[in-house]
Amino acid sequence: MDLWITERYEDQFGLSFKVKETLYHAQSDFQRIDILDAEFYGRMLLLDGMMMTTERDEFIYHEMISHIPLLAHPNPKRVLIIGGGDGGTVREVLKHPSVEQVVLCEIDGLVIDACREFLPTIAGELGHPKVDIRVQDGIQLVADLAAGKYPDQAPFDIVLIDSTDPVGPGEGLFTLEFYQNVYKILSSNGIMVNQSESPWAMQPRVRKIYALLNRVFPLVQPYIATIPTYPGAYWSWAYCSKGLSPLSQMNMPLAESLSNNTRYYNPAIHQAAFALPNFLKALLDVETSPVCDAAVTA
Amino acid sequence: MDLWITERYEDQFGLSFKVKETLYHAQSDFQRIDILDAEFYGRMLLLDGMMMTTERDEFIYHEMISHIPLLAHPNPKRVLIIGGGDGGTVREVLKHPSVEQVVLCEIDGLVIDACREFLPTIAGELGHPKVDIRVQDGIQLVADLAAGKYPDQAPFDIVLIDSTDPVGPGEGLFTLEFYQNVYKILSSNGIMVNQSESPWAMQPRVRKIYALLNRVFPLVQPYIATIPTYPGAYWSWAYCSKGLSPLSQMNMPLAESLSNNTRYYNPAIHQAAFALPNFLKALLDVETSPVCDAAVTA
Repeated sequence: MDLWITERYEDQFGLSFKVKETLYHAQSDFQRIDILDAEFYGRMLLLDGMMMTTERDEFIYHEMISHIPLLAHPNPKRVLIIGGGDGGTVREVLKHPSVEQVVLCEIDGLVIDACREFLPTIAGELGHPKVDIRVQDGIQLVADLAAGKYPDQAPFDIVLIDSTDPVGPGEGLFTLEFYQNVYKILSSNGIMVNQSESPWAMQPRVRKIYALLNRVFPLVQPYIATIPTYPGAYWSWAYCSKGLSPLSQMNMPLAESLSNNTRYYNPAIHQAAFALPNFLKALLDVETSPVCDAAVTA
Repeated sequence: MDLWITERYEDQFGLSFKVKETLYHAQSDFQRIDILDAEFYGRMLLLDGMMMTTERDEFIYHEMISHIPLLAHPNPKRVLIIGGGDGGTVREVLKHPSVEQVVLCEIDGLVIDACREFLPTIAGELGHPKVDIRVQDGIQLVADLAAGKYPDQAPFDIVLIDSTDPVGPGEGLFTLEFYQNVYKILSSNGIMVNQSESPWAMQPRVRKIYALLNRVFPLVQPYIATIPTYPGAYWSWAYCSKGLSPLSQMNMPLAESLSNNTRYYNPAIHQAAFALPNFLKALLDVETSPVCDAAVTA
């Protein structure tokens, strides 16, 4: 018997994968968690039926959310990751010798447990001594930090929003208030990068995200890469800073040496990722009209 | 009733599209031809069940196969397109004011007829007075031209191999002999670009293509773009010349002005398309071992 799984997007198109084996299935307090073993793409994590990561293409997402901001920053020491329970972003962040502490704030402890057991090539660095795992709501943690509740724990040089789509538990990570709180906990040279959805398949959603970001950060620059297992394959991240550009203070010798240990990232890609096709330049041109402060769920 | 079409690749993964209507179906002497109208992607052309082009994303492929070589060349006048019966490449080539003649050599006249009727936004320029349509085998035409059979019709400044995959009628367009004959019909500043398949989903095939190209052309540079409806989404083209680089003689004012009339291409993309992720740099490093001269069909 052939078993196929299909992730359909908006009942318009879909991606199908031939499944060899179901390795894990659970319903947590927050979402349905599935880990399957598929032909070609290997093991894959789905949350509420949406593809999060696969062994074969996870390096693209995890390298691009991490190395662009960490190499743009002259000396990143303290890194906060919101979401990212699969551990792939932690693994990449730890490749930077300047990093002293990585706080990983994942709302769903079951995701961490499942990935540690079934996705060891992705989650393998979650036990690293520099990593401080907090199983709690990232929205609340960032709000508490922004309110000065834990003054010894802020600011951060880098904040990475490694979230699910803005439906379910990830919804509050796409709001003006959340971005304002992240801004407050960043150092003066600080950089936030958030995954900003597919600029091919989810254009209204992407426009709203950038409209909100531009109200909070003086510098917002989208960058892109191709992720074959995500809807539409085009994927975007927002590089947001208090002024530091993604290229001006780049540590080129470090970028070159790090590239010996990456499968996607290299210095030419660092620059090329910010070159947008015309249809994306048009899409991501910030809306001048006032936008709603509500969560972006379109 | 919901009707979905799924293109499966190597029985491992697939892309599915919700179909609104079947517009055209025929079996020509060469292949099965289908034109469907789908949700999101609009009208789409499939040959032998393989996705060739859709109204929504065709601009990416057609702009990238055309504008990179035509803007790299200082003064392209004569252009030969092998394949490309849908007319999208012709449409883009005609945006270049220096072009005096476009020869389109498509083996399957039924593809041209069907696209003219059902894909007018793509095929709409096939009747342009600069276009000379030849319904014949491109392999034979290039061999005849290379043998000096029609001395008044060569050389060409640009040859674009806008082919199907190397199965069925496209197979002979991926051979050493064909590339050698293309080389012979190029002017001294001439450029060939061929679509060189997916470097994500078809890696052995891509390696063989580049190994052959490197035996014929002094300069071979792969470039990439993301095409959501092709297997794996990563797509590649080979820029092949007798020495002219893709950037050194680029006409920047023309590239800027042409970008007002494109949806993907712009000068930053021209450069960024040649920046390859590490996994592609490794893949496309030319094989040093001897390769078989046979057609590339892996």
